[in-house]
Amino acid sequence: MLPKLKVTGRAEALRVRLRDIIASETMLVSSLEDIRWLIGFTGSAGTLVLRGQDMVFVTDGRYIDQARAQALLSGAEVEVREARSSSAHLDEIAEILKTQEICGFDPAEVSVKNYEDYRGALAPKLIPVGGLVKQLRRIKTESEIARIQAAAQATDQALAQVEPLLSEGVSEREIRDELEYRMRKHGADGPSYETIVATGQNGARPHHRPTDERIVEGDAVVIDVGALVDGYHSDMTRTYLIGDVDPMLADMHRVVSEAQIIGVSLIAPGVLCSDVDLACRQYITDHGYGPEFLHGTGHGVGLQIHELPWVRKDFCEPLQAGEVVTVEPGVYRRGFGGVRIEDLILVTQTGYRILTQSQKDKLCLPSPRMI
Amino acid sequence: MLPKLKVTGRAEALRVRLRDIIASETMLVSSLEDIRWLIGFTGSAGTLVLRGQDMVFVTDGRYIDQARAQALLSGAEVEVREARSSSAHLDEIAEILKTQEICGFDPAEVSVKNYEDYRGALAPKLIPVGGLVKQLRRIKTESEIARIQAAAQATDQALAQVEPLLSEGVSEREIRDELEYRMRKHGADGPSYETIVATGQNGARPHHRPTDERIVEGDAVVIDVGALVDGYHSDMTRTYLIGDVDPMLADMHRVVSEAQIIGVSLIAPGVLCSDVDLACRQYITDHGYGPEFLHGTGHGVGLQIHELPWVRKDFCEPLQAGEVVTVEPGVYRRGFGGVRIEDLILVTQTGYRILTQSQKDKLCLPSPRMI
Repeated sequence: MLPKLKVTGRAEALRVRLRDIIASETMLVSSLEDIRWLIGFTGSAGTLVLRGQDMVFVTDGRYIDQARAQALLSGAEVEVREARSSSAHLDEIAEILKTQEICGFDPAEVSVKNYEDYRGALAPKLIPVGGLVKQLRRIKTESEIARIQAAAQATDQALAQVEPLLSEGVSEREIRDELEYRMRKHGADGPSYETIVATGQNGARPHHRPTDERIVEGDAVVIDVGALVDGYHSDMTRTYLIGDVDPMLADMHRVVSEAQIIGVSLIAPGVLCSDVDLACRQYITDHGYGPEFLHGTGHGVGLQIHELPWVRKDFCEPLQAGEVVTVEPGVYRRGFGGVRIEDLILVTQTGYRILTQSQKDKLCLPSPRMI
Repeated sequence: MLPKLKVTGRAEALRVRLRDIIASETMLVSSLEDIRWLIGFTGSAGTLVLRGQDMVFVTDGRYIDQARAQALLSGAEVEVREARSSSAHLDEIAEILKTQEICGFDPAEVSVKNYEDYRGALAPKLIPVGGLVKQLRRIKTESEIARIQAAAQATDQALAQVEPLLSEGVSEREIRDELEYRMRKHGADGPSYETIVATGQNGARPHHRPTDERIVEGDAVVIDVGALVDGYHSDMTRTYLIGDVDPMLADMHRVVSEAQIIGVSLIAPGVLCSDVDLACRQYITDHGYGPEFLHGTGHGVGLQIHELPWVRKDFCEPLQAGEVVTVEPGVYRRGFGGVRIEDLILVTQTGYRILTQSQKDKLCLPSPRMI
């Protein structure tokens, strides 16, 4: 049973930041994940307006009841108003803001079109304040961590059940379908993102979509899978070597595994995200695969599968306790295959805790069998 | 076997529109669905630049190989360039556009932040041209229709297998899990959106998320389910009455069914979308449920689950042959229950073809049974 998820204190934390930055407590919140974090709403449309100590959420007829019920459940103090068309939506926001002089908005979350509509219809001057809620969302509460942990466990359990199927003749799609079905049986609401199953040469594409391609002996099979639990994501990758593989593939696997362990070992509050990336990258480069490590080392995970902080060489902020990040180095050789290994890591007060527990060592299946 | 999906002629159709509107053939395309429609790319990041007769796609290391392979497969003539960071991405676009004087962009698809970055870095003046690709995407080719049809069939087949389970004691989540698993067995890549299963009072929320709530006799069970096939969506809703139900619920079901049949019967090229909505709305209003029809009558379906055209009272454009739309009236009574019935309809040269074939008449299961 998951602990209740309360949003208490979150709007106030945002107001503190707003007062610091624009000397006002008025803001339009457009991102659905930011809205969910602030008032517990899980639907697909609506705009949240902070105005002094008030919050008003404007949404359409499909979501009025749901928004009120979810606010009650999460402890959000928010008035819910209905607007049945996009022009009514704009009018409602204009009415809420008619006495305000300035109003913040997140420029990464508002389209040029909506901005022009707002400029034409709203009384206050619009001030860009980038990523305020996304910054606050970085540090997870115990209730949020419990959901991410549950999502990681659902994936671990599903993968343990699917591992025996990983042998000659099974297709990428079949593996994906079984994984996603099993995750749900273990409590997931669904997959966290499009599950990746990539065998043989397909593994050279980091974000390959599963096809009818079947496993043959000698393949490396990359499986990148996560679950959703109550809006929170998990993320994990394992790479399986099927039977006798090319020594180069085994070497790639060893190097990526070791780089991943090194990266994870560095996770602690105060460590720069960029330093985690550089450590993995240096190790892989030292072993000759540098140009084939095609992406960053990791990213934050929460209400979005990719969120702050970024574990990349150009993101030089320190990790903080309560953040959840991936460490997922990979090496991809065109026309040959790929290897990626990824864990989901909670930054603790003293270091880290690994949330994904699927085994990494038993990778070579001794005798592939037909099923 | 699905027919190959070629993008031939699409970029040229866009150029024709661009020449008409901004007397130029230069445009930034940001929407991933618009990009997929133009060059076949299915990944999660990248920007497409049209420049005269050239197209250049800028993406990151995860997607270079994939983008080239998918362009080849779909017949798109596009150069793919790699950018490993967001600043490199911007630099690359600036380089491509350095000799251009003006450049179109879709203001609904570019955030204020990206627009400011573009304004700072790019040589051409940026001209808003709203929804050009989305307008072109309205008319589906035979290959696109084949995919939508296959998605609808996967849902029909899955629902036929799940119908026998719809009886006392089965939970909303269990029904969803079975549906999604079965859809995949029938060729779907996954669900088209979050499957809705809402029993009893939950049915009063049009976009309810499945819970552990179990069916009891007297419930109406709303099932709104679609599949994805090669990027194309389907969309269908059925409402099942379980055993003996309140006469009011049976009346709601009858009225919604009849309104839906009336709406579908109107579908033909040249008919205004708003008239389809008004016909359904009038029928439901005449029978006393007007205020409880909480949403529009339908929407276009294609690479997005919600796209042009909108079957709403404020969207007064005519339907065109080759469009695919839903007709989905519903009535929702708080604390009591809800009914929605939805089909996916192809607009043909002479009228319409219904793509979703699940039965609507055998709705009362005579004797609920425990499983």
